[in-house]
Amino acid sequence: MSTKQTQVIEKNSLSIRQPIIDVDVHEMLPHHHDLAPYLEQPWKRWLTECGWNGTRQLPYVQHLPGGVEKMDAKPGDGRPAGSDYKLMKEQLLDKYDVEHAILTGLFYPSTMKAQYEFATALASAYNDWQIENWLDKDSRFKGSIHVAAQDPHSAAREIDRLASHPQMVQVLLPIASFSYGDPFYHPIFEAVERNGLLIAMHQSTHTTTALDNGYPRFFIDWHTLLPQAFMSQVVSLITNGVFEKFPSLKVIMLEGGFVWLPALMWRLDYNYKSLRQEVPWVKRMPSEYIKEHFHFATQPIEDADPKEMKQVIEMIGNEKTLLFATDYPHWDFDSPTRSLPTTLSKELKRKILFENAKEVYGL
Amino acid sequence: MSTKQTQVIEKNSLSIRQPIIDVDVHEMLPHHHDLAPYLEQPWKRWLTECGWNGTRQLPYVQHLPGGVEKMDAKPGDGRPAGSDYKLMKEQLLDKYDVEHAILTGLFYPSTMKAQYEFATALASAYNDWQIENWLDKDSRFKGSIHVAAQDPHSAAREIDRLASHPQMVQVLLPIASFSYGDPFYHPIFEAVERNGLLIAMHQSTHTTTALDNGYPRFFIDWHTLLPQAFMSQVVSLITNGVFEKFPSLKVIMLEGGFVWLPALMWRLDYNYKSLRQEVPWVKRMPSEYIKEHFHFATQPIEDADPKEMKQVIEMIGNEKTLLFATDYPHWDFDSPTRSLPTTLSKELKRKILFENAKEVYGL
Repeated sequence: MSTKQTQVIEKNSLSIRQPIIDVDVHEMLPHHHDLAPYLEQPWKRWLTECGWNGTRQLPYVQHLPGGVEKMDAKPGDGRPAGSDYKLMKEQLLDKYDVEHAILTGLFYPSTMKAQYEFATALASAYNDWQIENWLDKDSRFKGSIHVAAQDPHSAAREIDRLASHPQMVQVLLPIASFSYGDPFYHPIFEAVERNGLLIAMHQSTHTTTALDNGYPRFFIDWHTLLPQAFMSQVVSLITNGVFEKFPSLKVIMLEGGFVWLPALMWRLDYNYKSLRQEVPWVKRMPSEYIKEHFHFATQPIEDADPKEMKQVIEMIGNEKTLLFATDYPHWDFDSPTRSLPTTLSKELKRKILFENAKEVYGL
Repeated sequence: MSTKQTQVIEKNSLSIRQPIIDVDVHEMLPHHHDLAPYLEQPWKRWLTECGWNGTRQLPYVQHLPGGVEKMDAKPGDGRPAGSDYKLMKEQLLDKYDVEHAILTGLFYPSTMKAQYEFATALASAYNDWQIENWLDKDSRFKGSIHVAAQDPHSAAREIDRLASHPQMVQVLLPIASFSYGDPFYHPIFEAVERNGLLIAMHQSTHTTTALDNGYPRFFIDWHTLLPQAFMSQVVSLITNGVFEKFPSLKVIMLEGGFVWLPALMWRLDYNYKSLRQEVPWVKRMPSEYIKEHFHFATQPIEDADPKEMKQVIEMIGNEKTLLFATDYPHWDFDSPTRSLPTTLSKELKRKILFENAKEVYGL
């Protein structure tokens, strides 16, 4: 068999026989005005008459041909990439035989600093819009309950309102400049636990990095350094004792990568040995909480030496930790057939592409 | 030969035959009033009559027996650990046969936000105090020129003033919340390059992390996440084109560890392939600049699996990158005889303990 034939067969065999769960797919709101029908007054007026501008902003010029959008995912009628179900179905669900696509949106009112009653109303409207325009259209879609995390009690009520929807699987918390380990946010985890859901954290346009008040001068810096905010959340949840208080809580980290995880586990464990008296409610080695309670989506996966990538994945110490994601429809989309390191065993690839997410999401 | 005998011989052979260069030793000012004789008016008055409180502050209670100081390094008379030359000589230089100890201090006026004329005067006074009280006492000491980085032109003048001192080897820039890649700071690099010195960056009490405005709730979080600020500086120097502008510049990163470096190199290289149009002055793969222009002190080195530590060191891809440091007299002191992973070859250990620093510092 020629090499070319082998490749074709391999690609087909993955498309046909390897089921895929994609844990980070962004369904996009065409325009925030589309939420108006799902809002009560006075909030409806804020959108339709008062010129509110939405939650997205990033202080960089985008030098990519499609901005932060995958060029071919743009519907071409001015709506954002990811806002057209048929295109998503064709380019993602059908093309790659995706068994389940976990929708994560990109409309995150948790980052609105003022008027969090408005943020709460927007989150609720978004959830209703998501059900009607996405979950109802395709049973392969699983949904994220969006909340206004700055008001944890209202967030808990929104979780209780929607948790019984059969396609809702998680609560989405965007990463901004606050640490979710803080007891202030615990009512959210309490609601997640009592409803048998998961927490997913995703980067946002408000994700900050260590210097320059969070936004360095260049987009390449900011995007390269995004994992810092994920590291901080991992540490915050552990040192605040969240997993002792909510022992069945699972947290999925989306779009922060994972290759930095062994280094963080080592340093945190090492420090815990000296400094544990400061956080006496932390009962186990931090890396044990990480291996038990966290999952990390693979995207964006670096194209590093495949032998070294395999070593790093082994250092994590749990084959269940990684979940596959494409991040459709964004510029750094990871293909299900081409992005995982070639050095991983067939069995481990199957776990990452499907089994791990099936188990953690109970699908 | 019994195991016990072997250990004794190994320890002795390292003490006797393996020369050591320690690239991060903190000589401490007993009290900031000790700078008064080295200051001109009006600044002298600010210390002696106006109750200025010094540059150190950290918003945490310290739960370690000695606070952030190594318990046995405290002179016992109320002065801070690291302020007594005889004790340092006994506990560090003589005990471990340290060939050269690079003094790094911990009095960093770069982080003073207001009155940078005062900061400039303090940096200059500190340098004079350092020469008289440390460099003049022991030729094994090499010094750091301290500057007020918030006024880069005055910093450049201070560098020019002291660069010819035979024991001054580097300019120390503390890591706070600003990115040194910004062209604002380039006069410092220009002065460093024209004087044939090195840049050293060290964490400070003003080092910030990605969330909670830089200071998370616990010291264990802050200390675990310190490497974030180092990652940000590495990226900032590269994407701002510092190494194209100053091609002979070398940067030593102190007390930020190194195990996170491969993950950062991978992600930055990967992003560079897509985003390089944003930073057209960056001519090479970012990891090439890292391997050529950066050195990282090993301390605090994690006690992770020695096989995995060896893999990570190999992933860095340059045996010259790591330099040994104890961080004397602080709580997380690394012993020259016990802290490097047992899996490293004798040759590589020798490079890290001595040869690499000898070469980069020209000793």
